[in-house]
Amino acid sequence: MVTWNNLDTLASYQKLTTMKNRVNIVEAMSGENGAERVKRYSAPMAEGLTYNYAAKEIDDTILEQLAALAEEAQLVEKFEALYNGERVNTGENRMVLHHLARRQLGNDVVENGVNKRDFYAGVQAKAAEFANKVHAGEITNAADESFTTVVQIGIGGSDLGPRALYLALENWAKTNNKLKMEAKFISNVDPDDAAAVLKSIDVARSLFIVVSKSGTTLETLTNEAFVKNALTEAGLDPSKHMLAVTSETSPLAQGDDYLDAFFMDDYIGGRFSSSSAVGGVVLSLAFGPEVFADILNGAAEEDKLATNKDLLQNPDMLDALIGVYERNVQGYPSTAVLPYSQALNRFPAHLQQLDMESNGKSVNRFGEYVDYVTGPTIFGEPGTNGQHSFYQLLHQGTDITPLQFVGYKKSQIGMDVVIEGSTSQQKLCANVAAQIVAFACGKDDEDNNKTFKGGRPSSIIIGDQLTPRSLGALLAHFENKIMFQGFTWNINSFDQEGVQLGKVLAKRVLAHDTDGALKVYSDLLDI
Amino acid sequence: MVTWNNLDTLASYQKLTTMKNRVNIVEAMSGENGAERVKRYSAPMAEGLTYNYAAKEIDDTILEQLAALAEEAQLVEKFEALYNGERVNTGENRMVLHHLARRQLGNDVVENGVNKRDFYAGVQAKAAEFANKVHAGEITNAADESFTTVVQIGIGGSDLGPRALYLALENWAKTNNKLKMEAKFISNVDPDDAAAVLKSIDVARSLFIVVSKSGTTLETLTNEAFVKNALTEAGLDPSKHMLAVTSETSPLAQGDDYLDAFFMDDYIGGRFSSSSAVGGVVLSLAFGPEVFADILNGAAEEDKLATNKDLLQNPDMLDALIGVYERNVQGYPSTAVLPYSQALNRFPAHLQQLDMESNGKSVNRFGEYVDYVTGPTIFGEPGTNGQHSFYQLLHQGTDITPLQFVGYKKSQIGMDVVIEGSTSQQKLCANVAAQIVAFACGKDDEDNNKTFKGGRPSSIIIGDQLTPRSLGALLAHFENKIMFQGFTWNINSFDQEGVQLGKVLAKRVLAHDTDGALKVYSDLLDI
Repeated sequence: MVTWNNLDTLASYQKLTTMKNRVNIVEAMSGENGAERVKRYSAPMAEGLTYNYAAKEIDDTILEQLAALAEEAQLVEKFEALYNGERVNTGENRMVLHHLARRQLGNDVVENGVNKRDFYAGVQAKAAEFANKVHAGEITNAADESFTTVVQIGIGGSDLGPRALYLALENWAKTNNKLKMEAKFISNVDPDDAAAVLKSIDVARSLFIVVSKSGTTLETLTNEAFVKNALTEAGLDPSKHMLAVTSETSPLAQGDDYLDAFFMDDYIGGRFSSSSAVGGVVLSLAFGPEVFADILNGAAEEDKLATNKDLLQNPDMLDALIGVYERNVQGYPSTAVLPYSQALNRFPAHLQQLDMESNGKSVNRFGEYVDYVTGPTIFGEPGTNGQHSFYQLLHQGTDITPLQFVGYKKSQIGMDVVIEGSTSQQKLCANVAAQIVAFACGKDDEDNNKTFKGGRPSSIIIGDQLTPRSLGALLAHFENKIMFQGFTWNINSFDQEGVQLGKVLAKRVLAHDTDGALKVYSDLLDI
Repeated sequence: MVTWNNLDTLASYQKLTTMKNRVNIVEAMSGENGAERVKRYSAPMAEGLTYNYAAKEIDDTILEQLAALAEEAQLVEKFEALYNGERVNTGENRMVLHHLARRQLGNDVVENGVNKRDFYAGVQAKAAEFANKVHAGEITNAADESFTTVVQIGIGGSDLGPRALYLALENWAKTNNKLKMEAKFISNVDPDDAAAVLKSIDVARSLFIVVSKSGTTLETLTNEAFVKNALTEAGLDPSKHMLAVTSETSPLAQGDDYLDAFFMDDYIGGRFSSSSAVGGVVLSLAFGPEVFADILNGAAEEDKLATNKDLLQNPDMLDALIGVYERNVQGYPSTAVLPYSQALNRFPAHLQQLDMESNGKSVNRFGEYVDYVTGPTIFGEPGTNGQHSFYQLLHQGTDITPLQFVGYKKSQIGMDVVIEGSTSQQKLCANVAAQIVAFACGKDDEDNNKTFKGGRPSSIIIGDQLTPRSLGALLAHFENKIMFQGFTWNINSFDQEGVQLGKVLAKRVLAHDTDGALKVYSDLLDI
């Protein structure tokens, strides 16, 4: 049995708080000592990825203390409890089973006679079969033409993860002859979002996937109606173009308005749902089911590493606990995610949701306010673009922001040029290496304005190439990191009560049932 | 004459620091008092926009103190000095003249016999003439076909601003029959960025604009070579497809490799360069010169408001000083920018550069370290998308993040549907109104997990519709806000020394001139 305690009640954490500013990384990362650190402070991840944390403000003593914290907080045991079906989502009294959608971890979880692993696998098989039939021309439009485009209609977890994964692999797929259908995404209730997507596609040859677990999401239902309207106006039968991804009990599951429906359940939260039908249907249609299976397999390999009780061999837990040290001991409010890969250009937006919606909480899993800070602000853009933008503040601003770099040795498309003796890919990699050292070590100068104080901690995940498998491992790494941080803070990372009040008030505005400030704002906005 | 003093030496600021947590916005924004605040705390902006700051932690006493600070810090006088040609960019000993590119403000600024206003106007006229000839089919490719696509090759300020503005108006232009050419952007040195763009266009019918003030930007020169290579391989003459936007003294200006060249000078910084040829050439080609002129005119109207010494009638300065109060007195580290407009989806990324690169500094304009915090971290995504993502942390996380909303009464495309009695546009507006009140007032609940403490400050800029003119006003508002904040912090908002060290170290990596940690990182990345 695991026990759930607030972070500040743990002896190992209390000792950790005495280690503030213990490591000066300007010194630690300089000279041969620095070289030694880069070689030593490295943990293998799945699919050939490496998590290197040499430029973090850690040393062996802090790592030992983090290991003690992992043990006292029973982090791996809690992960085991989670994937074996304990109802760790206390607020909603739900299990948390997104790992099971990757199929390879833990015991069977059976509820009401349903083996959940089989349930998720069955939906994936159904999505695969459907996608294969579309690709083979066995499922076509009314004019017997093949479908060329798939449009995901969803918001939040039904949008950000699948979109980030699609964009991450779009060029890889084109290059490797795996792009079966172009994917587009409609998310915002802003009518210009749906209108612009509809204008950019041939609706007659498009499939639309309506994704909403509850079947009640305002934006998604509105955009579904928007699209149905457009299909009808184009003389098409919406039910021959629309698919549903929803729970079996949702309103969407009841109608016969869909060409087909693919089910999820309450045990896969929106922001963790890329591994379920939420990601599976659109990605299987876009890239083929075997590519989606590779993403899951890569994720499953990373999940296995997350079960290792040896902190130094568990990169997800290690990343999590270094983050807790930075947040709670060092006091840093934000973390930047900086992938040196244009294909990962929307991955930071997905991580922003994954992290901030999971761990942006002020109460513990029992509903009691905690006396320490929890999840940080997450933001980021791809490098080298960010270098010419907000890195100025990261290097020379008055606050310190921990950094999470990601880099790959090879590009996806393989087109490159040699300019002044190096390829673009080499320049890209040279820049991320240079940035880590610049942030850590800084540089003295007579002119304070040209001085870099350094001491800006970072880590880097290095891979060979961004592929379906390594993308899956990268995704699982961050999912697991965030989960371990939630365990450490003793919060429930799997609910999102903070989204409710806005929904309630928006309904009141639309019903013209407002007074006070809300009424005046509504008037100002002509509602 | 203006005098430049550190913020913490000003009596008005010292008094302001005694006003921490003076206003409880949960109370202030409730009931009829709240309604009254929303009506009162509002300042007109240009082009029909309104800056409403009722949900900020201010009252008349704080506003009076901010007005005293504006006066003591001589903010408007410093703005006047700036646009009249004082060398306020002390680090680089340069003038700061992006307002002059809008043509309407201040005295003539003459250097070496060149009237700068005329210089900028002349370049705009040249860009307009060029664009008109392309649109009229007078400038064509070698096969005498019209050009259909324009590709901007630039990074940082040569990318983020023009890209954000293009995306902001793309659907408006399509709807109003103003889209003359599709625009694409290549920025990252990641070869997959250029390769993917090149694969998505017909290079034979594309114009490429190489944008680099210095003519030495690594990424831009590399991508230029990348594109030239692709043109040559396609049997095309690069010099018939490529334009340069650069300074007259740059290497790019010397060659005859370009179809034409458009000049800028050292007095318009990259992140402020959307109003110059950096934005002008690509936007004039994409939308026609009159649309670009409208952007400038909207910006110029907002600039005029920024010259008003009455704080309550100067929305740019007011926004700036409320931000200083939040940053230095209330101690908030970040600000989120949340446009309820899908068209503004990359506007937060532009503001992220504009703000963080300008004000992410630790030394004052004389190179002395300051003893107070300066620029905050800026991040954001469009609403309603963000509501289903990171808003959880904004509502219920342990830190408070000030919020800057933007909303419009009308959509751009005008396609809409009525679902359950309201249009999508009404739902969009209802959501932003609801969020402001939810963040400010919160909601009690027996269950702490469902409790919203409120007290999260926000402002909103409300407009009728996102058009070229109102977009220009919005852009100028933030440029001026950031400038006023830099003045208040007594820092130089116009240099970016923090980008230099990374460049130097990256060159060393590519030259294999490394040791220590940098060498090991280079090895790990196979450079």
